[in-house]
Amino acid sequence: MDYNAHLDAAIGKLHDEGRYRTFIDIERRKGHYPHAVWRKDDGSEQSITVWCGNDYLGMGQHPVVLAAMKEALDATGAGSGGTRNISGTTVYHKRLEAELADLHQKEASLLFTSAYIANDATLSTLPKLFPGLIIYSDELNHASMIEGIRRNGGAKRVFKHNDLDDLRAKLAADDPAAPKLIAFESVYSMDGDFGPIKEICDLADEFGALTYLDEVHAVGMYGPRGGGVAERDGLLDRIDIINGTLGKAFGVHGGYIAASAKMCDAVRSYAPGFIFTTSLPPVVAAGAAASVAHLKTDQALRDLHQERAAALKLRLKGLGLPIIDHGSHIVPVVVGNPVHTKILSDHLLEDFGIYVQPINFPTVPRGTERLRFTPSPVHGPKEIDKLVHAMDNLWSHCALNRAEMAG
Amino acid sequence: MDYNAHLDAAIGKLHDEGRYRTFIDIERRKGHYPHAVWRKDDGSEQSITVWCGNDYLGMGQHPVVLAAMKEALDATGAGSGGTRNISGTTVYHKRLEAELADLHQKEASLLFTSAYIANDATLSTLPKLFPGLIIYSDELNHASMIEGIRRNGGAKRVFKHNDLDDLRAKLAADDPAAPKLIAFESVYSMDGDFGPIKEICDLADEFGALTYLDEVHAVGMYGPRGGGVAERDGLLDRIDIINGTLGKAFGVHGGYIAASAKMCDAVRSYAPGFIFTTSLPPVVAAGAAASVAHLKTDQALRDLHQERAAALKLRLKGLGLPIIDHGSHIVPVVVGNPVHTKILSDHLLEDFGIYVQPINFPTVPRGTERLRFTPSPVHGPKEIDKLVHAMDNLWSHCALNRAEMAG
Repeated sequence: MDYNAHLDAAIGKLHDEGRYRTFIDIERRKGHYPHAVWRKDDGSEQSITVWCGNDYLGMGQHPVVLAAMKEALDATGAGSGGTRNISGTTVYHKRLEAELADLHQKEASLLFTSAYIANDATLSTLPKLFPGLIIYSDELNHASMIEGIRRNGGAKRVFKHNDLDDLRAKLAADDPAAPKLIAFESVYSMDGDFGPIKEICDLADEFGALTYLDEVHAVGMYGPRGGGVAERDGLLDRIDIINGTLGKAFGVHGGYIAASAKMCDAVRSYAPGFIFTTSLPPVVAAGAAASVAHLKTDQALRDLHQERAAALKLRLKGLGLPIIDHGSHIVPVVVGNPVHTKILSDHLLEDFGIYVQPINFPTVPRGTERLRFTPSPVHGPKEIDKLVHAMDNLWSHCALNRAEMAG
Repeated sequence: MDYNAHLDAAIGKLHDEGRYRTFIDIERRKGHYPHAVWRKDDGSEQSITVWCGNDYLGMGQHPVVLAAMKEALDATGAGSGGTRNISGTTVYHKRLEAELADLHQKEASLLFTSAYIANDATLSTLPKLFPGLIIYSDELNHASMIEGIRRNGGAKRVFKHNDLDDLRAKLAADDPAAPKLIAFESVYSMDGDFGPIKEICDLADEFGALTYLDEVHAVGMYGPRGGGVAERDGLLDRIDIINGTLGKAFGVHGGYIAASAKMCDAVRSYAPGFIFTTSLPPVVAAGAAASVAHLKTDQALRDLHQERAAALKLRLKGLGLPIIDHGSHIVPVVVGNPVHTKILSDHLLEDFGIYVQPINFPTVPRGTERLRFTPSPVHGPKEIDKLVHAMDNLWSHCALNRAEMAG
């Protein structure tokens, strides 16, 4: 058995399709984000501006977050030293869970080591709690939801993206007595479009289904206290389980669900991905709690975030670029081909010091490969100017190239 | 559909079986571990000694680890802000991966947010890389390996724990041309027994199988540089994929695999659990790298760890307690009933300030419920004395109680 030949084939396929990923080694300098240093393979360094990070509000360098982390490090040390059940529950974890339950106006919340595992572990455990559960899943749901829904081979129905008629038809086709759950997102991260939360909740009520909402790309950024789009739209009480992350707008690490006390207790008690893993370091929980608490009151930061996103979209539209605009903070420019996307990304990085990673299949469907910009409050007018100038320059240049290639 | 009734039933079942888990809220005080503070539900506090943590060497409070974390926090901030591919790769991650590859004398290593997800993501991805792969899995493998092996419904054969004849029979029964992988552990954490690494590698050679070794409860603690039992036994080059954690003996957080460059590259490129999740915070990677580097040279700490474990086992044996002793650092005392185990644990905590969590099904088989003590270099003679005294006292007391109940 030639195992290496199989590995070569698997890796070769990615190279052939132009979607082999090369990780860029960057080093953020605290207080200077989005400016950072790119360390090249030859050891040389170049100053860059990060335009594709998910630290959407720059909280990863916020003084309240760093002070909380330093304090926890001094007080309690590095890791938690155990699973939540076996010596790994601390006041830092409990404070953070209380902070998150309050954020989403739920009775409880439950921390996981990532929002990926929160989705995966929760969605794969729910069929154990509700035998015969049918999960209705938006076709563009994140990989972690798909993995969780698939894991134990429970019943699933994939409905067309944001398509209420299709969802209704699928709900209506199933046994009215069967337990049901509708899993969807509030902000789909690759297009930046919103899920029809209210309408899906109406359908859930009509068909007696639970609702599971992934707010990973919304928590901290939407709603008067950063509780996400469901908070903004006054729909928190209509969502049974909310999934969120501490690693994007909150700037730290980890994930969670917020739900009723019973629901959290049952998931806590039955999900292997929660039970059998070392809990988050107290220092991480401390930083996240500080960030969540801060963003409950800092509406100005949320406003600035939206202003910057709107400004960038306006400028890029002015250049005639094919951007996707659904009114969220995410700014995708569709290139539509993995090789061209990579060329654009390479030129932006090398010639302009602008770092935006190409987004390829399987993160987005083939043919919709893109550059995905994530403006934030720390991306000021100067950074936006430079980006717009670079895109203008390269787009013209690459249009020429594309014409030549087509010829 | 009464969803709450289902949740009540699921939670009620655990109460009925005496295995509902109550998390103890503890707060370690840096530099004083294993001493810590137990914060009770009524808000009062009690000093306790932690006897069930997996910070096996006390590295969670080691000055080199804390200094590295503080430095990273000052230099770069809180979270990484992205997946490894999209702005989340930093010099801290790359340094740690180099440190771990060197530790295991492999070409490469690959970080995950936990060892749980490292097992789950890797083992569920390997069948994609080697179509038709059959995984031979020790029946006592950790939940994370079981979840990974099960996930995509690939072929699996569960062999009896450490049973080479059973493994050989299962290997021999399958198509010689099929790709194969044997997944097992070096130290099984609940009994503290060792896997027969050399003999399994011999079988792997004979049947052309890959070897996958979980060294989660061994890294840092065994081998002249902390490379685990495979290093101690001179078998590193015979293991294809090593899984390890940064959250136990290394005292921080996160997990990894170490393997050939090709293997890591392929897993990196195909595992959703690696691709679609925010990378570890740089501060965590920095602390872990410092810990791994330190333990490459601190043999004295490893020696002290083993001495303390041997001393505790000798003392508990002297009391005639049913301890399991396989010569490792883990000291399980089998109680054999979830209710009695909980009573013992409660009395140890409340009356003696000794914190050891009851271990119940599904972590261990029913009927083998236990207290699992984890002595470390920071558990000195005084702490051991107190524990032995308390166990002596309680064991007599509970034997009486058990006799009464039986009567």
